[in-house]
Amino acid sequence: MDYQAVLEEVAAHARPYARQGRVADYIPALERVSADRFGIAVADIHGDVYGVGDWETPFSVQSISKTFSLALVMAQSHDGHDDIWRRVGREPSGTPFNSLVQLEAENGIPRNPFINAGALVVTDRLQTLTGDASTSMLHFLREESGNPDLAFDQAVADSEADHGDRNAALAHFMASFGNLENPVPSVIEHYFWQCSIEMSCRDLAVAGGFLARHGLRADGSRLLEAREAKRINAVMLTCGTYDAAGEFAYRVGLPAKSGVGGGIIAVIPGRCTLCVWSPGLDARGNSVAGAAALDHFTTLTGWSVF
Amino acid sequence: MDYQAVLEEVAAHARPYARQGRVADYIPALERVSADRFGIAVADIHGDVYGVGDWETPFSVQSISKTFSLALVMAQSHDGHDDIWRRVGREPSGTPFNSLVQLEAENGIPRNPFINAGALVVTDRLQTLTGDASTSMLHFLREESGNPDLAFDQAVADSEADHGDRNAALAHFMASFGNLENPVPSVIEHYFWQCSIEMSCRDLAVAGGFLARHGLRADGSRLLEAREAKRINAVMLTCGTYDAAGEFAYRVGLPAKSGVGGGIIAVIPGRCTLCVWSPGLDARGNSVAGAAALDHFTTLTGWSVF
Amino acid sequence: MDYQAVLEEVAAHARPYARQGRVADYIPALERVSADRFGIAVADIHGDVYGVGDWETPFSVQSISKTFSLALVMAQSHDGHDDIWRRVGREPSGTPFNSLVQLEAENGIPRNPFINAGALVVTDRLQTLTGDASTSMLHFLREESGNPDLAFDQAVADSEADHGDRNAALAHFMASFGNLENPVPSVIEHYFWQCSIEMSCRDLAVAGGFLARHGLRADGSRLLEAREAKRINAVMLTCGTYDAAGEFAYRVGLPAKSGVGGGIIAVIPGRCTLCVWSPGLDARGNSVAGAAALDHFTTLTGWSVF
Amino acid sequence: MDYQAVLEEVAAHARPYARQGRVADYIPALERVSADRFGIAVADIHGDVYGVGDWETPFSVQSISKTFSLALVMAQSHDGHDDIWRRVGREPSGTPFNSLVQLEAENGIPRNPFINAGALVVTDRLQTLTGDASTSMLHFLREESGNPDLAFDQAVADSEADHGDRNAALAHFMASFGNLENPVPSVIEHYFWQCSIEMSCRDLAVAGGFLARHGLRADGSRLLEAREAKRINAVMLTCGTYDAAGEFAYRVGLPAKSGVGGGIIAVIPGRCTLCVWSPGLDARGNSVAGAAALDHFTTLTGWSVF
Repeated sequence: MDYQAVLEEVAAHARPYARQGRVADYIPALERVSADRFGIAVADIHGDVYGVGDWETPFSVQSISKTFSLALVMAQSHDGHDDIWRRVGREPSGTPFNSLVQLEAENGIPRNPFINAGALVVTDRLQTLTGDASTSMLHFLREESGNPDLAFDQAVADSEADHGDRNAALAHFMASFGNLENPVPSVIEHYFWQCSIEMSCRDLAVAGGFLARHGLRADGSRLLEAREAKRINAVMLTCGTYDAAGEFAYRVGLPAKSGVGGGIIAVIPGRCTLCVWSPGLDARGNSVAGAAALDHFTTLTGWSVF
Repeated sequence: MDYQAVLEEVAAHARPYARQGRVADYIPALERVSADRFGIAVADIHGDVYGVGDWETPFSVQSISKTFSLALVMAQSHDGHDDIWRRVGREPSGTPFNSLVQLEAENGIPRNPFINAGALVVTDRLQTLTGDASTSMLHFLREESGNPDLAFDQAVADSEADHGDRNAALAHFMASFGNLENPVPSVIEHYFWQCSIEMSCRDLAVAGGFLARHGLRADGSRLLEAREAKRINAVMLTCGTYDAAGEFAYRVGLPAKSGVGGGIIAVIPGRCTLCVWSPGLDARGNSVAGAAALDHFTTLTGWSVF
Repeated sequence: MDYQAVLEEVAAHARPYARQGRVADYIPALERVSADRFGIAVADIHGDVYGVGDWETPFSVQSISKTFSLALVMAQSHDGHDDIWRRVGREPSGTPFNSLVQLEAENGIPRNPFINAGALVVTDRLQTLTGDASTSMLHFLREESGNPDLAFDQAVADSEADHGDRNAALAHFMASFGNLENPVPSVIEHYFWQCSIEMSCRDLAVAGGFLARHGLRADGSRLLEAREAKRINAVMLTCGTYDAAGEFAYRVGLPAKSGVGGGIIAVIPGRCTLCVWSPGLDARGNSVAGAAALDHFTTLTGWSVF
Repeated sequence: MDYQAVLEEVAAHARPYARQGRVADYIPALERVSADRFGIAVADIHGDVYGVGDWETPFSVQSISKTFSLALVMAQSHDGHDDIWRRVGREPSGTPFNSLVQLEAENGIPRNPFINAGALVVTDRLQTLTGDASTSMLHFLREESGNPDLAFDQAVADSEADHGDRNAALAHFMASFGNLENPVPSVIEHYFWQCSIEMSCRDLAVAGGFLARHGLRADGSRLLEAREAKRINAVMLTCGTYDAAGEFAYRVGLPAKSGVGGGIIAVIPGRCTLCVWSPGLDARGNSVAGAAALDHFTTLTGWSVF
């Protein structure tokens, strides 16, 4: 496979979609990004990396961080004690990503780890396991991406906190059901720090390589059992793109996780990890050009999981 | 009407129901009360007061305070600028009193001022209007009841705060829709202090006299326009007893407001205000013996509003 | 009370609102009525009747029939066996009148007898009790109004049936929970016939007199116990105007039942029954000028129940 | 791959789970089946078939038929006019398979083609396209399975109709939104006939071969474009096992469709189609031993799509 040629063709096809989306504007720190940025990178399982466009420009990872917090919690629990799955489900939510309705109907157990409520539970667990949920993730991402310059974006984290009433409501609500181990303010703070990490398409494709390598880290050591890596991929496919997961599976057919910063990572198990970035979002919060790019990538390569 | 005789008969009928209910146990400070307490008082519009049983024993007013915070906000707004009604509705909720579902479906506007979310909005408004939502209510209740010893119960307020995640979730959620004027922690704190006030049946029947006197205070001055007092009664009848308002209207047929401390105040417009207290609650949070007492009172007197 | 003078003043005040509403257009037979019709009638408990405007013009009673079907079922059950209340609740619905959501959440038991689902259950029961739910109601209304010419409007009933999928869904859904005694098509047919009855404000005010007379019929015989008549009034107040019952209680303060034909009946217990008609509806399905008229009537007379 | 050996091992592992489930009892015709039946078959893409246990015993396909009706509608629409997807969504439902809630919130558009409401829409479309939605499916299944004896089970179809109020409610409800082209009774009847077809594991694995062959039929002709076959697999993975699709993807990792008759078909794209049958169901309506068998199959072979 000539990845570079494929990426060029994908970019030519998808870039025009960039202007159809709308940059996230719920916090000032995000809305300053220009809608017409577009980058895409692929890291194959041997460590080779290819990229096109703004593939080396850092952007706010936002909800893509949810994939890594879940992996880190599972990595520390693979003695078979799946505590985290007693506190968060694995089913698609069927409702918007920050909905309280389902949380209420299901007694404070979030539907899955990729809606905000579920990610707060995972962050809470990671906080208990590591003592510092955001720094432990940052260190992991630095090591795994090979980029020691990765950092939190304090302006973004502060801005999230200033507009954080919805997440505070989710956290207090789960606390009222006894589903948080740490104090609400601490959990929210670490969650916002995680979301604020800045990474490029290159960084994310490389750092997410363990999902394509059935759990093996960049240095060949094992982060997750093969079974566990597959299971994260399964949750990404059914729950990774907010309430458009079915549509995404139908069009793209790959496990993927999107963020409102405009990034999407996607996994082709046994082959490669992709990351695409374009800040213009559709009504459901997924990058318009990013989804078009992944759709075209699977059309060109025939590499959907189906 | 020989109130004293009627109250004796009502008490004889209703007291046996006391043991059927269950004392609120969500905070330790409330669950210590004995379930078999029972008291009832009537204050007629001329200021005469009658009582039976534990009618002079103070108890935690809890949600009955919602009636007074609404009245105080309306009293300060009767220039016709009904700001409060743009921020809270007047419809029965159809769902439990602390539900987030409706709040989400209706963009952060609580259904009515007597569910917790609505009362938080009213408290927020009272805080803006007075600078101290809880103390201003306490002063009003002292004056109106003629009992200068009324006080907050700090143990109850602290206990509510310790178990306050659900209310914090409601408040943050409304704040995320821009429906709070003051900081969430301040609104919650004043709300808990209001709920913690200790009053007896006598105190509450007397303090609620303005609702039977079409808005006139105990000293003859006007708190509310007649139209406003009627409207509070209407909201009490349709929304005052959690999600049992329809059942309460059907059985009792009086405007009423209950609290999880076991108290219920009820109004017979133009005649009198009643307060009954018995801590054992039914599944919907209303005093079992209290409801039985009011039911029997209207049967004996024929004084339902219907 | 000079009813005629009051009605003149009420009409002068309310008639201008007629054009603000929108005539029901979900079936062709209803949308042909002109929006600027307006009539109002009062029948006092002594049988005297007063009216203004189009008070003798027949219109489609629609959901006002729900009051009479409930009364007829209760009249045949006052041996104390309240079977009907095991099959239908007494709480406001909090959601639109033809919603399936609550029905699903509550296992096929409609919230109250005045939403469509509840009225279907009441009609089903009346069918079982009388063998002909629609004709028995028509005969009762003829006798009680003293108007032997009352009749079904076949065009309206047929038109309802042609657009009756929503009601068929409700009925089949309740049948799936075992909450219907008769075949679905039969229940729906009788329900549509009941709704199609044509009556004037005069007819309805007179026929609803038993609600103001604490259960006594026009000929002085007893239809309902006083307690039962009061209870129907209570259900009207909390549930009678679709999902605007709280607002209606707040503004008007009377038990009332509206229909999408533009009619509203209202009760002042111990005094009189009113009926107002104006076909223009607000967004919740209540007559705009009708609500304004009742609001002004209680303002002029001071006769709200609160 | 020695399929026969793998199936033997899978059967030995999974058969003990058979007794943990509960046979569907909502219609008498289904509950007569013994819970301890167990069969499994694999048809590879070359047409070779392997089986173990009761793999040649016919059972009621029930909701597995939804896969075939969707395929037949898509096969007749691959001119690019995706009409069906304007009338039914592609997202997991998040609520039980026969829920009305989502249907109401989303204006009569079912979430996906594998919940009952969605399948009714697909059947309605197939009826329009073929003139006989049930017979056209039967003929297709006979041809594709190579078993000319396949037939409807009239007792099952009649029994479904006798207990069909829930489906009638769904159909009338969608009709009220204008989302059915044919009369409700006709759509329901064809839907029940489709569900009543009796097939064995062998028949279903062979008939579902086109899903593994990227759209090619048993005779080598093309039923669906490769893209379309992949998309059906995607919908199966995200929506095929009622509200346990996320859990199923997590544990098994294969596109699959289950039925309350106890059958499950699953697809390994490019390799084979499986069918497993064991009538004991879990709380969500999926075969307990069937799910265990597929889980063990992917563990032994490593053939999850992730």
